[in-house]
Amino acid sequence: MTVKVAVAGATGYAGGELLRLLLAHPEVEIGALTAASSAGTPLGQAQPHLAPLAGRIVEETSADTLAGHDVVFLALPHGHSAAIADQLGPDVLVVDMGADHRLADSADWQRWYGGDHAGTWPYGLPELPGARERLRATTRVAVPGCFPTGGSLALAPALSAGLVEPDVTIVSVTGTSGAGKSLKPHLLGSEVMGNASAYGIAGAHRHTPEFVQNLSGAAGRTVTVSFTPVLAPMPRGILTTASAPLTGDTETGEAAVRAAYEKAYADEPFVQLLPEGQWPTTAATVGSNTVQLQVAVDADAGRLVVVAAIDNLTKGTAGGAVQSMNLALGLDETAGLPTAGVAP
Amino acid sequence: MTVKVAVAGATGYAGGELLRLLLAHPEVEIGALTAASSAGTPLGQAQPHLAPLAGRIVEETSADTLAGHDVVFLALPHGHSAAIADQLGPDVLVVDMGADHRLADSADWQRWYGGDHAGTWPYGLPELPGARERLRATTRVAVPGCFPTGGSLALAPALSAGLVEPDVTIVSVTGTSGAGKSLKPHLLGSEVMGNASAYGIAGAHRHTPEFVQNLSGAAGRTVTVSFTPVLAPMPRGILTTASAPLTGDTETGEAAVRAAYEKAYADEPFVQLLPEGQWPTTAATVGSNTVQLQVAVDADAGRLVVVAAIDNLTKGTAGGAVQSMNLALGLDETAGLPTAGVAP
Amino acid sequence: MTVKVAVAGATGYAGGELLRLLLAHPEVEIGALTAASSAGTPLGQAQPHLAPLAGRIVEETSADTLAGHDVVFLALPHGHSAAIADQLGPDVLVVDMGADHRLADSADWQRWYGGDHAGTWPYGLPELPGARERLRATTRVAVPGCFPTGGSLALAPALSAGLVEPDVTIVSVTGTSGAGKSLKPHLLGSEVMGNASAYGIAGAHRHTPEFVQNLSGAAGRTVTVSFTPVLAPMPRGILTTASAPLTGDTETGEAAVRAAYEKAYADEPFVQLLPEGQWPTTAATVGSNTVQLQVAVDADAGRLVVVAAIDNLTKGTAGGAVQSMNLALGLDETAGLPTAGVAP
Amino acid sequence: MTVKVAVAGATGYAGGELLRLLLAHPEVEIGALTAASSAGTPLGQAQPHLAPLAGRIVEETSADTLAGHDVVFLALPHGHSAAIADQLGPDVLVVDMGADHRLADSADWQRWYGGDHAGTWPYGLPELPGARERLRATTRVAVPGCFPTGGSLALAPALSAGLVEPDVTIVSVTGTSGAGKSLKPHLLGSEVMGNASAYGIAGAHRHTPEFVQNLSGAAGRTVTVSFTPVLAPMPRGILTTASAPLTGDTETGEAAVRAAYEKAYADEPFVQLLPEGQWPTTAATVGSNTVQLQVAVDADAGRLVVVAAIDNLTKGTAGGAVQSMNLALGLDETAGLPTAGVAP
Repeated sequence: MTVKVAVAGATGYAGGELLRLLLAHPEVEIGALTAASSAGTPLGQAQPHLAPLAGRIVEETSADTLAGHDVVFLALPHGHSAAIADQLGPDVLVVDMGADHRLADSADWQRWYGGDHAGTWPYGLPELPGARERLRATTRVAVPGCFPTGGSLALAPALSAGLVEPDVTIVSVTGTSGAGKSLKPHLLGSEVMGNASAYGIAGAHRHTPEFVQNLSGAAGRTVTVSFTPVLAPMPRGILTTASAPLTGDTETGEAAVRAAYEKAYADEPFVQLLPEGQWPTTAATVGSNTVQLQVAVDADAGRLVVVAAIDNLTKGTAGGAVQSMNLALGLDETAGLPTAGVAP
Repeated sequence: MTVKVAVAGATGYAGGELLRLLLAHPEVEIGALTAASSAGTPLGQAQPHLAPLAGRIVEETSADTLAGHDVVFLALPHGHSAAIADQLGPDVLVVDMGADHRLADSADWQRWYGGDHAGTWPYGLPELPGARERLRATTRVAVPGCFPTGGSLALAPALSAGLVEPDVTIVSVTGTSGAGKSLKPHLLGSEVMGNASAYGIAGAHRHTPEFVQNLSGAAGRTVTVSFTPVLAPMPRGILTTASAPLTGDTETGEAAVRAAYEKAYADEPFVQLLPEGQWPTTAATVGSNTVQLQVAVDADAGRLVVVAAIDNLTKGTAGGAVQSMNLALGLDETAGLPTAGVAP
Repeated sequence: MTVKVAVAGATGYAGGELLRLLLAHPEVEIGALTAASSAGTPLGQAQPHLAPLAGRIVEETSADTLAGHDVVFLALPHGHSAAIADQLGPDVLVVDMGADHRLADSADWQRWYGGDHAGTWPYGLPELPGARERLRATTRVAVPGCFPTGGSLALAPALSAGLVEPDVTIVSVTGTSGAGKSLKPHLLGSEVMGNASAYGIAGAHRHTPEFVQNLSGAAGRTVTVSFTPVLAPMPRGILTTASAPLTGDTETGEAAVRAAYEKAYADEPFVQLLPEGQWPTTAATVGSNTVQLQVAVDADAGRLVVVAAIDNLTKGTAGGAVQSMNLALGLDETAGLPTAGVAP
Repeated sequence: MTVKVAVAGATGYAGGELLRLLLAHPEVEIGALTAASSAGTPLGQAQPHLAPLAGRIVEETSADTLAGHDVVFLALPHGHSAAIADQLGPDVLVVDMGADHRLADSADWQRWYGGDHAGTWPYGLPELPGARERLRATTRVAVPGCFPTGGSLALAPALSAGLVEPDVTIVSVTGTSGAGKSLKPHLLGSEVMGNASAYGIAGAHRHTPEFVQNLSGAAGRTVTVSFTPVLAPMPRGILTTASAPLTGDTETGEAAVRAAYEKAYADEPFVQLLPEGQWPTTAATVGSNTVQLQVAVDADAGRLVVVAAIDNLTKGTAGGAVQSMNLALGLDETAGLPTAGVAP
């Protein structure tokens, strides 16, 4: 089986990572590559690392250029996906790598993003309870935000098992590629290198409602989330430190916690619960679709602490998108997705 | 007034930063420079950036080489300061940049460091309530750990004012120099660059009891602290994200919080509460003794979030040590201490 | 066809990159993984990014553990390959990723490395004239040094075509992984980040005679080489700037130069001569086996300038090794070798 | 003596570094701070590291705002200095940190920069023969380009002494701040980190004619210069590797070379010829006005190799500007200029 795939937003970081993965996917033929301002130029200008596609000419993003493909990935600014998706027909698999179809609640959408709510599509994080089944039966996928990918997997098993209170604190250290190629002064290399800075503080980041949605779903009740992203001097990677008050006896807690995580992720090809004593590093996940996890109990503070490492562009965006495509098309879920990282 | 200063541990990162500051201090004459394995070599080998001292020969650390100075700084591995300090006489100002004299509780010392407890000296963080007075009347100073420096200043005003519950979460992103020049595989450049990793998870880091001591002192009751350090790819800097549940009405909380911090730090020369909307960055503090602070209220999560940025080697170690020396000697507290950072 | 492969030196950077590539190679089964001090531990400790091999136990490097494989890769310190190779039998393909079998001249070996010269094996840089044929008919391969890989391909076409004088200057900016996991102070992250430094200056680097050998072979006469490596703050990548005096009319030189390079590399799957106006970047080659090249004529200085970018661990070591294995086994030369990089 | 200083271009990297130095200068009072687009905002927004000046309001750059100062520094885009300088009066010391007044030859100016040539001012590199005297007798200073600062000092003594042929090769690895705060895609952190790239290849960089001018002056005849800049992932620093064919007997060359450099720089407060066996690192010069130099002879290649490290913003721009100001005003040449770097 060969599926023909178009990528809208092929010149950005998410689009570039997606194309890198698709080049190695055994059942994919890469079709139209589209973008906005760089239409008409060879892809090699915007994506010099994609040597096999260097001579491909970027086209304009439109229903016409995207027509005639089995799968269309949309790596567009938020608010742009619904209009395109409506023109692609119900049989085409549309994978939205933007935010438009992630939130179930219209009020949430309007508060955090503004404008009309485009609706909700099956959520592309198969490791969450129930998600895999929905993805196997859809032609529309909403790819999660990069922060909620690692952070939700870090806490869902403990919340599902009732091991922690529904009141969580999440601090995620992220590389710069999550911000895309935006020409903003604080993203210049001179500003970023040798520097750590917090932003979107005190619940101001748009991924907060997505955390609440995912974790409340896992807990079966509303979860309060305090989320802070920290920008660190690295191109890729998110290291999430998540914690929550333990509900039970902390002296026996660590075994129960580890058992819950082992059970939750025993059959997951992309979640690696590390051996005791080994801690996640983002470097180990660069370019791979793996989530590295470790859990620990702080008996003094009475809290569970979970650390998760992912590559924001791979499992956090493009790898998660391919994983969902595989499920929706009935392919091997792991096809084309490396689990070994590029390190050092 | 000129004071003659000796530095034990002159070849490490803390010693190097101390010497950089002392070179620019208007009232200091740099005397003996001592170390262990590199005794007998020119300082320029271990500290190539200290051009004015390149030809100075490093001596062995001993009571003899350290004798005859007005001030002795000890930048030694933990457990080594007490024996040396005992031989230096009560009139010499001894500034211990290690951990030996930070903790008041012997049981804490034994649990976290092991071995005999050397006792407690006045704590070199003048911005904490009561600390400045004790530093003005001492010939012995215990310099704080780098993480508790920023993290304690981030939360002390809110705890003192009763604005938050005594149950705090602290995640600190740190550069690599805090680990010193130890030849450990995970500190190699190849491992560190492009990488974020957590360590000392779930209350396992030795700075945890120091946080508890400082914050409990500020709160007037025992504070529970969940502390996680994260190693980031930068040589210097600590960015601390600290949060705690608000006690009061969160709708009016932000103004009350800001007022408490403005009051607490109004006259502090080294604490910069940033204007609303501007967030701390470690880059802005490189090489300076400044602490950048920002506060915010997360009304959804019901938490106060405070972000603090410092240079771990300057305010977090050597700058704090000079500031305490200035106080103990009756000099201008700010002498020799830059408040402008080296950026970008 | 499936070949069974052993890797001696599996815990180092070169061994780790080799395993990453072999995991994705369609015709390889990974057999014994051996090392020295870490024998007996799971590979996941030394190579946390190789999730699929995390539980594999590292064995001791010996003729016994390496026996029974079709291919043995030796990623060992120099001077250790010959003794092992002698015990592996003539039918086993032995790929030496160290220096032992690179130099043809015994006097060169003794001057630059010392000790007995182990002899010369076919040189694993198929893009050099005549090399590919020798690799197709051998069971022994000497993988090139990382610097000579990019630098030789940068200058060989111009020297072969007589476009430049045999007197070349090469400055190569390298990431830190080329130095391996050695616990040396100058390789610590704190020392490396924010820092550029030269080393092995003025012809002192051991790759100099390898440059002379390769370039003299291309030129058909002795080439004088001034080589300087510069250490830059990045884990991977080598950017080589090579120049030499033009022999001919510089006004028409650029066209002739470009024609020579286009001809030399027209059919090379791993050499990408960039379009005019685009310059090589190491980031574009991370994790890929591609060499990015650009050529230009400096009419004022009368010199040809060539810039080459590679990943030192991929094309510069492990990728080159796999490429040579493919040739020696009669496989598709490109099997298992990505040409798209991991960027940003 | 206190001099009142204005800075035009106070919001850029050069202006920021200048202000950091001026804050610590014992004889300077900081007056007007001007800029273009950020006029009207507090300086703390553009320069968050300059805590002591955070509340100062940036003014528009004009003859009015710059009037009434003893010294005016111009950190403006090229082509903008002459018009302003003309309005400042002959008694005001004007220090041009841009390119406008560096080149003596109008044809050079027109070829490399375009537009009318503003003329030549005394060149602010006191360590070049004759330069210090001219700077002591001027009210107009042209601050050198960052690359020619280190590169000229690297080669001038050898060329002056006739030890090398007038045909030199220079490769300079630079941090990103040399490019300023320009919002260009290739300067984004995501692009810069983990990446080395060459640009302005084959004599295309505008600093080439400045090299030729300086080195020809030192040699007493026309010097041919092949210059290549390489962008490395660090905010600050330039490491220059310069080489040239030796004219004499290379067996005795190293002693003669070292003697020439020792003699040339014996009394220079900011040039540090390192002990044999120690190599320059840019990290050692961060924030300091020091040039680290090392020389070596490559007997095989018959070339002198010199490596120079500077901080591009300090000695390479703002520190050099202050040094020239000190000379022009008759102050101690070293006032306000640190020679110890900020490392690690």
